[in-house]
Amino acid sequence: MSSEFGKILKVSVFGQSHGTAIGVNIDGLPAGEEIDLEELQRFLDRRRPGKNKLSTARNEGDAPEILSGLLEGKTCGAPLCAVIRNSDQHSKDYAELADKPRPGHADYTAWVKWKGLADMRGGGHFSGRLTAPLCVAGGIAKQILARRGVHVGAHLYSVGNYLDAPLPDCPTPELFEAVATKPFPVLNDKNGELMQKLIERAKQELDSVGGIVECAAIGLPAGLGDPMFDGAENRLAAALFGIPAVKGVEFGKGFTASYLHGSQNNDTFAVEDGRIVTTTNNAGGILGGITTGMPIVLRAAFKPTPSIAQDQKTVSLSKMENTTLTIHGRHDPCIAHRAVPVVEAVTATVLLDLLLEGNHGTF
Amino acid sequence: MSSEFGKILKVSVFGQSHGTAIGVNIDGLPAGEEIDLEELQRFLDRRRPGKNKLSTARNEGDAPEILSGLLEGKTCGAPLCAVIRNSDQHSKDYAELADKPRPGHADYTAWVKWKGLADMRGGGHFSGRLTAPLCVAGGIAKQILARRGVHVGAHLYSVGNYLDAPLPDCPTPELFEAVATKPFPVLNDKNGELMQKLIERAKQELDSVGGIVECAAIGLPAGLGDPMFDGAENRLAAALFGIPAVKGVEFGKGFTASYLHGSQNNDTFAVEDGRIVTTTNNAGGILGGITTGMPIVLRAAFKPTPSIAQDQKTVSLSKMENTTLTIHGRHDPCIAHRAVPVVEAVTATVLLDLLLEGNHGTF
Amino acid sequence: MSSEFGKILKVSVFGQSHGTAIGVNIDGLPAGEEIDLEELQRFLDRRRPGKNKLSTARNEGDAPEILSGLLEGKTCGAPLCAVIRNSDQHSKDYAELADKPRPGHADYTAWVKWKGLADMRGGGHFSGRLTAPLCVAGGIAKQILARRGVHVGAHLYSVGNYLDAPLPDCPTPELFEAVATKPFPVLNDKNGELMQKLIERAKQELDSVGGIVECAAIGLPAGLGDPMFDGAENRLAAALFGIPAVKGVEFGKGFTASYLHGSQNNDTFAVEDGRIVTTTNNAGGILGGITTGMPIVLRAAFKPTPSIAQDQKTVSLSKMENTTLTIHGRHDPCIAHRAVPVVEAVTATVLLDLLLEGNHGTF
Amino acid sequence: MSSEFGKILKVSVFGQSHGTAIGVNIDGLPAGEEIDLEELQRFLDRRRPGKNKLSTARNEGDAPEILSGLLEGKTCGAPLCAVIRNSDQHSKDYAELADKPRPGHADYTAWVKWKGLADMRGGGHFSGRLTAPLCVAGGIAKQILARRGVHVGAHLYSVGNYLDAPLPDCPTPELFEAVATKPFPVLNDKNGELMQKLIERAKQELDSVGGIVECAAIGLPAGLGDPMFDGAENRLAAALFGIPAVKGVEFGKGFTASYLHGSQNNDTFAVEDGRIVTTTNNAGGILGGITTGMPIVLRAAFKPTPSIAQDQKTVSLSKMENTTLTIHGRHDPCIAHRAVPVVEAVTATVLLDLLLEGNHGTF
Repeated sequence: MSSEFGKILKVSVFGQSHGTAIGVNIDGLPAGEEIDLEELQRFLDRRRPGKNKLSTARNEGDAPEILSGLLEGKTCGAPLCAVIRNSDQHSKDYAELADKPRPGHADYTAWVKWKGLADMRGGGHFSGRLTAPLCVAGGIAKQILARRGVHVGAHLYSVGNYLDAPLPDCPTPELFEAVATKPFPVLNDKNGELMQKLIERAKQELDSVGGIVECAAIGLPAGLGDPMFDGAENRLAAALFGIPAVKGVEFGKGFTASYLHGSQNNDTFAVEDGRIVTTTNNAGGILGGITTGMPIVLRAAFKPTPSIAQDQKTVSLSKMENTTLTIHGRHDPCIAHRAVPVVEAVTATVLLDLLLEGNHGTF
Repeated sequence: MSSEFGKILKVSVFGQSHGTAIGVNIDGLPAGEEIDLEELQRFLDRRRPGKNKLSTARNEGDAPEILSGLLEGKTCGAPLCAVIRNSDQHSKDYAELADKPRPGHADYTAWVKWKGLADMRGGGHFSGRLTAPLCVAGGIAKQILARRGVHVGAHLYSVGNYLDAPLPDCPTPELFEAVATKPFPVLNDKNGELMQKLIERAKQELDSVGGIVECAAIGLPAGLGDPMFDGAENRLAAALFGIPAVKGVEFGKGFTASYLHGSQNNDTFAVEDGRIVTTTNNAGGILGGITTGMPIVLRAAFKPTPSIAQDQKTVSLSKMENTTLTIHGRHDPCIAHRAVPVVEAVTATVLLDLLLEGNHGTF
Repeated sequence: MSSEFGKILKVSVFGQSHGTAIGVNIDGLPAGEEIDLEELQRFLDRRRPGKNKLSTARNEGDAPEILSGLLEGKTCGAPLCAVIRNSDQHSKDYAELADKPRPGHADYTAWVKWKGLADMRGGGHFSGRLTAPLCVAGGIAKQILARRGVHVGAHLYSVGNYLDAPLPDCPTPELFEAVATKPFPVLNDKNGELMQKLIERAKQELDSVGGIVECAAIGLPAGLGDPMFDGAENRLAAALFGIPAVKGVEFGKGFTASYLHGSQNNDTFAVEDGRIVTTTNNAGGILGGITTGMPIVLRAAFKPTPSIAQDQKTVSLSKMENTTLTIHGRHDPCIAHRAVPVVEAVTATVLLDLLLEGNHGTF
Repeated sequence: MSSEFGKILKVSVFGQSHGTAIGVNIDGLPAGEEIDLEELQRFLDRRRPGKNKLSTARNEGDAPEILSGLLEGKTCGAPLCAVIRNSDQHSKDYAELADKPRPGHADYTAWVKWKGLADMRGGGHFSGRLTAPLCVAGGIAKQILARRGVHVGAHLYSVGNYLDAPLPDCPTPELFEAVATKPFPVLNDKNGELMQKLIERAKQELDSVGGIVECAAIGLPAGLGDPMFDGAENRLAAALFGIPAVKGVEFGKGFTASYLHGSQNNDTFAVEDGRIVTTTNNAGGILGGITTGMPIVLRAAFKPTPSIAQDQKTVSLSKMENTTLTIHGRHDPCIAHRAVPVVEAVTATVLLDLLLEGNHGTF
């Protein structure tokens, strides 16, 4: 694969930032699932650019047209292809970049790979804009999952050094919904204000800042995923690293677990209301790659937006010499807060894939 | 897939800890590659149990028999299957565990998935012992890579709160070799002593401790990997999460990048000796999923060994009630130091796969 | 996968016959390849319905809109998504069919699989109309291949018992072009007239008739494909059986080889102009799954169009009783002649995939 | 993949004809399935060489050692690896062949692919001997399927121009068993005698002859398989072309369907005993890639054994000139009759994979 992930449910993303359209083809959706297009649009609006002063000024409706896969508002088993037209392109802003790779961007690696032939206007196929079709897939997956009692939610865990409150051990759909409807997706708004100030300051300094998104999923049964290389962690990580700017992924306590003792990190099993639970969830709902039935908890680290308005040193590819670059155009001083629904989307899509595949452990 | 990873080079791991044998089938090796079996054995010895007092007392030769894929000491293009016999099994130690899932282990999830029918003696197919065949694959990949000037090395980045010195920006094959031949795989032996003391103390306290392995690869060309979901990060992460006890994976600055500003995290491009480099390597050698030609740098976080000798609370699966478990048998108080060659092995295998696939960007 | 095939070059088809649009997403095209859209349209016109009296009366322009993957007329490395709008739908013709599965169609199996929830209007995702996006992919592949001296051509090998002349052992691009521009794609027009008469007679008798398409590819190097399950034959067959109505696939002498002796069927190797050839090509250019450098030769057998205007016995799914069905609407009395470019398209796409993957036999 | 097939159930074959061992790794078997090793051996004996005067004189026990995946005689969910040692090697017989590719064999294509570095002694990884591990996988699959009422059987449909009686529309397990226990696997022994005479005559003439194997599977539910490129036909064909010497695959009426009219070929649906059946089965149990619930029927065409004792013209690879080759060693004058259990094995494995995957049409 390449711009595709999934096993039973395959998600293929296409499009370039400044091309005709971007979109997604979703193959393997079960039939008969009603898709609430207004709810889907509300979900897409959560990552939409131009929403507030912290985001890029590019303002696009991002209303997807669904070309296939639906019959009278319900999935029909055939692949669902959704297309979002690119309406607001300023390609001239990017003319200089063709020769001067932006530090921290894929400009240079794309130039090597495609020998200068890639469409890198606005980041091309690497643009954060490609997360819109991912959210179409994820928004659909979320609706199908919710109908089965599986809910996926996320919040902005940190921006720079500012941390939000942690997710509770047992998050509820209501909590997910509450965060989702906030203009700034944090649990604790005071923390959120500090984060926003940091982002604004970065913007004023012609700089950018990174952040971490934490995501959880509740209601998933135990027993999903396969050992070793096809487990829940492998698949989630492989997909999450497909979101532009993600540089780290961890589950449960993640890197923090490496600082702990076994007596601290082990989750005690207990019988509760006739079913087996763990009294803590340091494993993030996954042991040996297989779901435990406890909430899936993961975090994805986003690097600071590489496009900053400060002058930066780089090279001229045509002259093979050092030079200076000034990036114009519109860029988010932080993408982590807009990435919150994207992490939800990718997580939901992978979990739906796992759920559709089911448990083949016995016949 | 399941116990398999790779695209052009496919690695399938089989075996249970206390079964007849464990092994690996490697499909897609190029022909004509000489495999130095003594060098391979030296590599395998690096993860071998029973090497020092910090490791489990289980002592196995772990000498693989290569059943296929070789002709007069060289690969012949056919799949290479290597088998390691299990010689030192104490299955009776694990009798109680069949009913009482060990906290932090896959016992419970395996029980759910396979309805109690899995062979979980000694951890079964989830056992750390399965990293031996992974090292067979990785040891072979390392030899093939080294012949092309690609070198993979790793060190123990931390145990608990004790950190080793960081890898230099441009590690050398000699440095990798130096660490590899140490009994405790750190850059700074003083730091290593502190780590070992922590591990010993954990052992005395019938506890265990986690750690982080840092791995780097040098000599890889720019332009390998595909955008979005089939990039170098996606594939490495998907494979690395297949190593038992890994709970987090990051590239370059990783999670730390989320705390930085763009002006700090962006790697400046520069022309040096007629080729394009970055003056720092916060990206860990990967931008947009595609290699930059700079060293690949990654870290994998290992949770503390879940098997600890303290009494732990758990459940009885047969009685569906809470109970207490005492784990006997031999267990490492820390697996991170033994995981160093395993992370190297998995990294080398994925990188060889990327290199074999090559750059399909243009025709 | 599902409606997708390919390894380096992935082709995903979407759409239903009477939905909003059909289309194809092509991931993995090399960058810098000029796509001649007029030539592509001429290729698409070869399978277009409504071309002559032998075909269905449905008349659609079938002009694809390319949404992504192109930059100034050349491929740019990003996935290429092409969409064909459905303009000429007569869904009411198919109302009765929802309850009465048409014999020989996927109506019944789709009903079982999707529990009656599939969009089967006009055959839905199973419709022969989905071969239009396949031809978009194949038409693009043919252009890229031709630039490397690889040419793919096909002709109508038979309709019912009427056979065309066989392809010569060494077909030329000119021969392929000559057949491609004929209104009825045969080598020998006299044979073609007999075939057409048979089709017309079948139509008058409210019946249909099957046929065989023979396809060849010249200019492919030796050494492509992998042994056992990933060879040229495996991949071509897997893709060709994706064309609706294909019930058999054979390579070289194919089924006829089973009637021969080894001394007849073996192709003698010989040195000719400094390169190794075979003096015959009973193997169809593939030995052990790997290309020999001789022309690839294959045949795909198409069953007679299952939609016939005669009354047919079937069942009522709602009443679970036997009943009679009269199929209205527009249907080809034979699809084999329209399938000629489709077989070319699928063959070209698979061969381009093989060529892009290249020969990983040695490093 | 390469020497692997399958989706949920992955089968990887390894080994060379004259290497240390051959074998198979089967990943994805459900746990708790009892494997009757004696029954498995009886199945393997059906393809065993040296059984009668029609087969090669090479006599090997072919008793597989199962290294993993079993616990007390039952599958345990972990990959099952089975190894068959090569005991009876006469590699010296093949010395001349390294330079002179045998007509009709993969010698030449392997030489191109692996630049002369492949182990082609006795055909290496391309040898018919590799069908023994395929039969291990298939024999296990057959046992698991039979427990669910799915039975797979095959017979020798033809040798040269001599045909067996056709399989009845509704074959029974008893019929499959009756053929399986015959020394020559035909329905009608008179026809079988004619076939055997033809094979003996071919042998006397230092020649070989091809044949066709017909295989059927009963008891499979309707609704398995996916549309277009992941249907039952695509998967079966892709796997069947992995059997050495297969040059054609067809389902139901197959190529014969192309000679028929729709009114002849369409299978009428009817309600029978409260379930929907077709009164004929020209579709071979598959419509639109999805199973109908009727018997799966397929045929695989085997070319005549390319190794014949007559002198043959070929080339010297070292001298790049034409030369003559005399093949010594032991070779079957016909492989089709020994391929009967192999076709069963591959078919059973693919069908078990489809059954394990199940029907994801709705949730």
